[in-house]
Amino acid sequence: MAKKSLLKPTLATILLILAFYAFFNTFLSPINPTTTKLDSNFPFESTGSSFTLLSTEKTSSNSHNSIKVYLYDLPRKFTYGVIENYLIARDSDSSKLKYPGNQHSAEWYLFSDLIREDRDDSSEIVRVLDPEDADLFYVPFFSSLSLVVNPIRPAGGVVDSNGGGGGVYSDEEMQESLIEWLEEQGYWKRNNGWDHVFICQDPNALYKVVDRVKNGILLLSDFGRLRGDQSSLVKDVILPYSHRINPFNGDIGVEGRKSLLFFMGNRYRKEGGKVRDLLFQVLENQDDVIIKHGAQSRESRRMATQGMHSSKFCLHPAGDTPSACRLFDAIVSLCVPVIISDHIELPFEDAIDYNKIAIFVDSNTAVNPGYLVKKLRKVSTKRILEYQKELKKVKHYFEYEDPNGTVKEIWRQVSLKLPHVKLMINREKRLVRRDLIEPDCSCLCTNNTGIISTI
Amino acid sequence: MAKKSLLKPTLATILLILAFYAFFNTFLSPINPTTTKLDSNFPFESTGSSFTLLSTEKTSSNSHNSIKVYLYDLPRKFTYGVIENYLIARDSDSSKLKYPGNQHSAEWYLFSDLIREDRDDSSEIVRVLDPEDADLFYVPFFSSLSLVVNPIRPAGGVVDSNGGGGGVYSDEEMQESLIEWLEEQGYWKRNNGWDHVFICQDPNALYKVVDRVKNGILLLSDFGRLRGDQSSLVKDVILPYSHRINPFNGDIGVEGRKSLLFFMGNRYRKEGGKVRDLLFQVLENQDDVIIKHGAQSRESRRMATQGMHSSKFCLHPAGDTPSACRLFDAIVSLCVPVIISDHIELPFEDAIDYNKIAIFVDSNTAVNPGYLVKKLRKVSTKRILEYQKELKKVKHYFEYEDPNGTVKEIWRQVSLKLPHVKLMINREKRLVRRDLIEPDCSCLCTNNTGIISTI
Repeated sequence: MAKKSLLKPTLATILLILAFYAFFNTFLSPINPTTTKLDSNFPFESTGSSFTLLSTEKTSSNSHNSIKVYLYDLPRKFTYGVIENYLIARDSDSSKLKYPGNQHSAEWYLFSDLIREDRDDSSEIVRVLDPEDADLFYVPFFSSLSLVVNPIRPAGGVVDSNGGGGGVYSDEEMQESLIEWLEEQGYWKRNNGWDHVFICQDPNALYKVVDRVKNGILLLSDFGRLRGDQSSLVKDVILPYSHRINPFNGDIGVEGRKSLLFFMGNRYRKEGGKVRDLLFQVLENQDDVIIKHGAQSRESRRMATQGMHSSKFCLHPAGDTPSACRLFDAIVSLCVPVIISDHIELPFEDAIDYNKIAIFVDSNTAVNPGYLVKKLRKVSTKRILEYQKELKKVKHYFEYEDPNGTVKEIWRQVSLKLPHVKLMINREKRLVRRDLIEPDCSCLCTNNTGIISTI
Repeated sequence: MAKKSLLKPTLATILLILAFYAFFNTFLSPINPTTTKLDSNFPFESTGSSFTLLSTEKTSSNSHNSIKVYLYDLPRKFTYGVIENYLIARDSDSSKLKYPGNQHSAEWYLFSDLIREDRDDSSEIVRVLDPEDADLFYVPFFSSLSLVVNPIRPAGGVVDSNGGGGGVYSDEEMQESLIEWLEEQGYWKRNNGWDHVFICQDPNALYKVVDRVKNGILLLSDFGRLRGDQSSLVKDVILPYSHRINPFNGDIGVEGRKSLLFFMGNRYRKEGGKVRDLLFQVLENQDDVIIKHGAQSRESRRMATQGMHSSKFCLHPAGDTPSACRLFDAIVSLCVPVIISDHIELPFEDAIDYNKIAIFVDSNTAVNPGYLVKKLRKVSTKRILEYQKELKKVKHYFEYEDPNGTVKEIWRQVSLKLPHVKLMINREKRLVRRDLIEPDCSCLCTNNTGIISTI
């Protein structure tokens, strides 16, 4: 009886506390949680696709320490318009506005995360609807898709002056048009662009205007086509490519992994990717190695899935630039990556110790006949299982659709840049004119006591 | 009656919740809150000084997101031993171990903050007693005091090869000895020093070994004597000097501030400080300007206090290096700083917009006869009051003894470096040997669209 009489008021108290908490959170938060209709630039609602576009939205109000991000309400041609043009150029149904699957789809995931109604309160960022409240400004131009709107693209990834294969859509004109639009924005001019975030995941995305947006935080795959004063680990964020094959959902183990090493991809690439042909030469006659020349297709993805799920190690040589989506395919396949790309930069490296999940070999050593297979055959099963265990731990960082995955981590990385953004804004306001021989840079340098291989 | 019967169990519930909270916090925290006696390297207890040294301590366990810092238990000669030698060299009472007042006393404030028993839970960092738990390692060598242990110091701040004026104490030997000690520490070698924090506030402190500690986070006054690969805004933290005059505790206003511009200090300095003599020439015959040549002394500090508290503007020309303590004297005096130091870097510039509290003029323009006074006389009282209001807002950042002041902000700045520290540690582990023409640096560069003056 005594118990029962205590229970009711106890529950009442807890409810009261929760109610107070909710009240404070809901009504006394600095961010106005009103629901706002998006303007007519975003009139489409897509159904039947894996991505649902929402026409209403609200800001999250629970993350008091979150960085506040304003999503620019760009003219429609820079977002849905790009998808539409892409689909029209392929005679596909453009009424659905489904963002086409590709390795550079981070631009879609980040955009759709910002506009969705049920944004996760645990996110590092909160979307604000008043630019005056914003710490950072996100520019959601689909710059990577824009690059490939016109289906015919010269081999090797370099685009012609029309931004594609001569269709009516011009990526270059879009880039110029974006800058023109930005130049009209007061917030763009206010801080010389330091507080703006651009996504240019394809190494050629935004290439024509990169010098004009370089103060911003760039979300990119690597620095292969950029100079040190345009982008860096300090200023920018390295994104993983979207993996293109299905993840391996089984447990760790080597039973189902009969082949030692797997690679499937283009044998011939430019620049850093020249190592590929040399690797083919030293690897293609090894019994337990599967190494195949092949371009991207649905069928080749199926074969790559099978190969990566049944091999112990997966080769990751440099492509035209140091990064490639294959690394992330290998990670979600629990196939230990063997990275042969001397200038690679890796996503989220403050949070991930890649030494625990991958093997690094420098290019010169890797192409020595016999070296690689000999080394890999010596790696014990115990050691492989350790790699796989670690791969399983960090896999979520490479899953764009995981609520605790890539998108959340990208926003965390972006939020880490804010102190530098603020520093540069304040510093530039008061810098006096100086005669400098070199650019005014603040750097983080390694002593470069490089190692040959981590095996 | 109903009210009363509800009250008791309500209180009981709240207490229960609090008890649970306390239980979780106290017993399930990852940091072990045991009280540990410091070892015999720290046997001194100072009484009667403004700094009380504590012989026992405990770690804070409430700051779950705080960065964990391990304070190295350095041999006594690097901490209290330096004070002792300093006092002995001056025939002072060395039994009290009072750290001598000087502009580079941040080394003392940070050390005594780390060892005090009642560390603030709201601090950005928490001290851990097990190095295995640490994110960062603090090396508490009093490097700035060590530089001036021997009283006779050649003019201009450059020390001779014996680290001073020929006494038995040798700062250079101390620096070498510190490195020898570090080389024996496993944690120092583990990550190439990236996770170590050094304080070298005097521009000459640690000068002999800086190349060996440069991977660490350096706490310093400016980059005047360091190369870009040794220190930078990205890697390191700029500290304010301790102000040497008393703060102005009155309200904002210009009534008590009859003189326009005040400066007292050494007329002749080397390098960037050569502007001083030129400024003397153009300013010394102006009616409402007080400009005096004078060295540091108790009497000159008294005069400077009076001057800074009764002037509207305070001149801050470069010294031997771009920074000087005078700026911080001006700030706590609510005397609007006029900064003539083209290469100055400023403390906490992500948090402080110096444009709101100071006037910047480039050296070439400032030495034009008549320019400066003409410009300053034109600044309206309203504008001066705005500057003063902002100065009042940020003053606490420059008060080392304020619990919400400099020490707290320095730790916040240090904690902001952790993502880069982790990135560099992980990245260096897997970097392969590369042939590079330039050092491997990641930079933040300004477009350097400098302005002439902010007036």
